[in-house]
Amino acid sequence: MDIQKILVTGRMFKELEKLALLDTKREYLFLPEAEVRSNHFDWADGYVAFKPTESFHFGKLRWVHALGAGVDAFLHNREWKKDVLLTRTVGSFGSKIGQYCLSYILADVQQHQKFQQYQTERQWQPSQQLLLQQLRIVIFGTGTIGMKVAKMLHTFGVTVYGISRSGAPIAHFDRVVSLKDANSLLAEADWMINTLPLTPKTDKLFDKHLFSCMQGAGFINVGRGASVDETALLEAVDRGQVRRAVLDVFQEEPLPAASPLWSHTNVTITPHISAVTGVDEAMDGLLAVLEDMDSGQEHIRHLVDVSRGY
Amino acid sequence: MDIQKILVTGRMFKELEKLALLDTKREYLFLPEAEVRSNHFDWADGYVAFKPTESFHFGKLRWVHALGAGVDAFLHNREWKKDVLLTRTVGSFGSKIGQYCLSYILADVQQHQKFQQYQTERQWQPSQQLLLQQLRIVIFGTGTIGMKVAKMLHTFGVTVYGISRSGAPIAHFDRVVSLKDANSLLAEADWMINTLPLTPKTDKLFDKHLFSCMQGAGFINVGRGASVDETALLEAVDRGQVRRAVLDVFQEEPLPAASPLWSHTNVTITPHISAVTGVDEAMDGLLAVLEDMDSGQEHIRHLVDVSRGY
Repeated sequence: MDIQKILVTGRMFKELEKLALLDTKREYLFLPEAEVRSNHFDWADGYVAFKPTESFHFGKLRWVHALGAGVDAFLHNREWKKDVLLTRTVGSFGSKIGQYCLSYILADVQQHQKFQQYQTERQWQPSQQLLLQQLRIVIFGTGTIGMKVAKMLHTFGVTVYGISRSGAPIAHFDRVVSLKDANSLLAEADWMINTLPLTPKTDKLFDKHLFSCMQGAGFINVGRGASVDETALLEAVDRGQVRRAVLDVFQEEPLPAASPLWSHTNVTITPHISAVTGVDEAMDGLLAVLEDMDSGQEHIRHLVDVSRGY
Repeated sequence: MDIQKILVTGRMFKELEKLALLDTKREYLFLPEAEVRSNHFDWADGYVAFKPTESFHFGKLRWVHALGAGVDAFLHNREWKKDVLLTRTVGSFGSKIGQYCLSYILADVQQHQKFQQYQTERQWQPSQQLLLQQLRIVIFGTGTIGMKVAKMLHTFGVTVYGISRSGAPIAHFDRVVSLKDANSLLAEADWMINTLPLTPKTDKLFDKHLFSCMQGAGFINVGRGASVDETALLEAVDRGQVRRAVLDVFQEEPLPAASPLWSHTNVTITPHISAVTGVDEAMDGLLAVLEDMDSGQEHIRHLVDVSRGY
């Protein structure tokens, strides 16, 4: 595909300016989001950003590259223009998200909160901790990220179950089932981790019914906020169906100050930090796609299947 | 070695009673510590416990088996009787201690405390986290436990340095140096972990001088409390030489309510829980030693080198 004029925007547009030095055969325009106007899309045939600007329209675009791993900002509730190629950043998100999840799971099994409380009371109250190898963890999503999280947990002897579209067996999972068979696994899970992209099929997937299948498991959401019915989640936490929720993504971000999630004892809130795109990996991903386009590769790396939404 | 009469005491003496069923060719006596009298040692030739009772003397003993990994309660500041065999429990302490250490290191790099604080303030303040592969960690002790911790960290790409008596290279460590060469490594360390046993050589090893070589590293003590000069440690924390101390063991246990360690913001206290002996592993370790003795093995498993103290 012959792309000539690329518009780059988003929080790291400044750092990405060195692209123009590395790739001198194309024209580049680097702008903060607020300065991107509608007519820029009548100039550019390539668009690189975390999400569409307010002024976004397809114009002359023939290629869009997402700087994040998720492409729901581009696809969800939007009619995609046929023949516009969509690629995304893969990078080290699996490793980042894995360490995020592991940190909260380990803090839980090692009872950090309990011992922190005892410390403030100057109380010496020994107890035996669980080990990771005693846990059963269900991961929703067996793609690049879900599989990396599974691999990390598997190394510690965790029993790892996967939930995927097909339910086909995949490396690092003890067992994979399709969504309709998920319920039976949830009852015996110690943790449930959502790594799924947001698509019409995963929109509000985690609802009252799904939470009601859990019997005291922890829930980590590193996928997308819109996949969770937050009201149903809070009810499930109150009922003890969900023992603890660790949430990095939300229906609305930043999470509104009025949200009841902030103040719930058994809810941990982090501000969408489990997999922040680094400049280097953004650059690497982008250069890989450009290289594949330039060399006329049939299979361009990091290409999104628009019909699936990931 | 022919052992005939075994005295078993300590917090799990009840659970260990099934030993008498598994090993019918010896006489066993199972007692709580408070009921062990001096004359029991004139009856028994074997003693199984976490530590010597107050009434302890060598009497007829020819074998002592420690239910914990550390044997300093038996050896430190005590003249050991020649020809009394000392064995200890190895079990899964490396795995337990590894998960304990990893939980606090991950909670630190993932900035759990900072985000917890933001949550109470309903503040949305994203930032990028470090990854484990960016860390350099120095482990004091390259024995069973130190090596297991090193292996776990190495899997994540942590650069792992070891400090040992000999300084000889060993698997899972990027580099091992002897104690006298430790200082140079400490200046660049992100974390320093003590897994050493308590011996005359490690008594107050972590003193003012050693802490002064650290430039903001975290310190985890899962070895023995007496290896640390607690006053020097607190001064080092106050000076920022030690950024954070995570302490599971103390000079005096339980840690006295009056200790200034309890209330220091940058000190985490846990009540000696990083490697609690489980009944199953206590039993397994003990049966392994008995089996080796019965079959006349020259190398009895889990034998302690009394001259070294571990």
